[in-house]
Amino acid sequence: MHTATQPIDNGVNVTALLGAREALAQAPAAARFTWRAHCDWVRGTHSRIAVEDFYGLGETQQHRSRFTFEADHPEVFAAEDHGPTPVEYVLVGLAACLTAGVAAVAQHRGIQLRSVKATVEGDMDIQGILGMDPDVRNGFDDIRVTFAIDADASRADIEALVAQSQKRSAVYDLLTNPTHVKVEVK
Amino acid sequence: MHTATQPIDNGVNVTALLGAREALAQAPAAARFTWRAHCDWVRGTHSRIAVEDFYGLGETQQHRSRFTFEADHPEVFAAEDHGPTPVEYVLVGLAACLTAGVAAVAQHRGIQLRSVKATVEGDMDIQGILGMDPDVRNGFDDIRVTFAIDADASRADIEALVAQSQKRSAVYDLLTNPTHVKVEVK
Repeated sequence: MHTATQPIDNGVNVTALLGAREALAQAPAAARFTWRAHCDWVRGTHSRIAVEDFYGLGETQQHRSRFTFEADHPEVFAAEDHGPTPVEYVLVGLAACLTAGVAAVAQHRGIQLRSVKATVEGDMDIQGILGMDPDVRNGFDDIRVTFAIDADASRADIEALVAQSQKRSAVYDLLTNPTHVKVEVK
Repeated sequence: MHTATQPIDNGVNVTALLGAREALAQAPAAARFTWRAHCDWVRGTHSRIAVEDFYGLGETQQHRSRFTFEADHPEVFAAEDHGPTPVEYVLVGLAACLTAGVAAVAQHRGIQLRSVKATVEGDMDIQGILGMDPDVRNGFDDIRVTFAIDADASRADIEALVAQSQKRSAVYDLLTNPTHVKVEVK
């Protein structure tokens, strides 16, 4: 348990992040990042996706290792379920984004976290993707994120923590606001 | 190479999908799906996310196995890079969704695919997530998907295939149109 003699440690290097913010204020072009995923179709709705390199701070960067993923449709869609569906990967990203934000904001506010759990749910009417009804959208019609947080803070402080994470979350923004997506054939 | 005597086989069971569409037309409530991800914070910006169960066809469904993922921030963000960033998971989902769609539409149109590769890139100015400039959004300001497809079809047919996949894609819809996201603390 946290006492006044123990430093708050959620494993987030806030000093380095504040330093980065100062450095980027002097060189805003370095703040332009490009994230990438490379996808190979395997068979049916099964594909394999790699995440390895990205661009930022003015040059190409490599992740510490190459991360690969399988995606597929489930057996109830007459597929082989070799991996999560594409929309579940979006929920993975949303859960991870808000959770990382909770840890970073908690560190900045001097709140010791003990555990953070999040359940993310997205509702969808599959009449959309099946092309059955033009009034039904393809994507989620509603998304819910429920946090259970054990921390050295009041409920009000925990709620404020989550609200601030949401305010700065890239994936929350991507889902709640439209983004231009260009799709082309090489 | 495809000849008139070989059946088109991209590994997509179009007959079953058309059957599902007919069945759901009679019982539209069964088309309500809920997809889920469960996230546990590990330390810093590192979290572990599981995808296992979902709801659809009127009952809880289980994936063939439990899929788990690590997400983190990279070392240039003063983190430990235990996995892709949350926004890269969104790109994984987009790549997989459009690629699965290409395979399904190709099967339906009698086009034999030989290979499908997609590169997905998302541009972001990290001044947004760092809270440096309120006019810079947190998410991507632009996303590009580039397909390289080797198939038994003309370039025009391949472009039409990709356009149809885009039209029915759940993740493309999620990114290009806003979705309501509710975040709460239990």
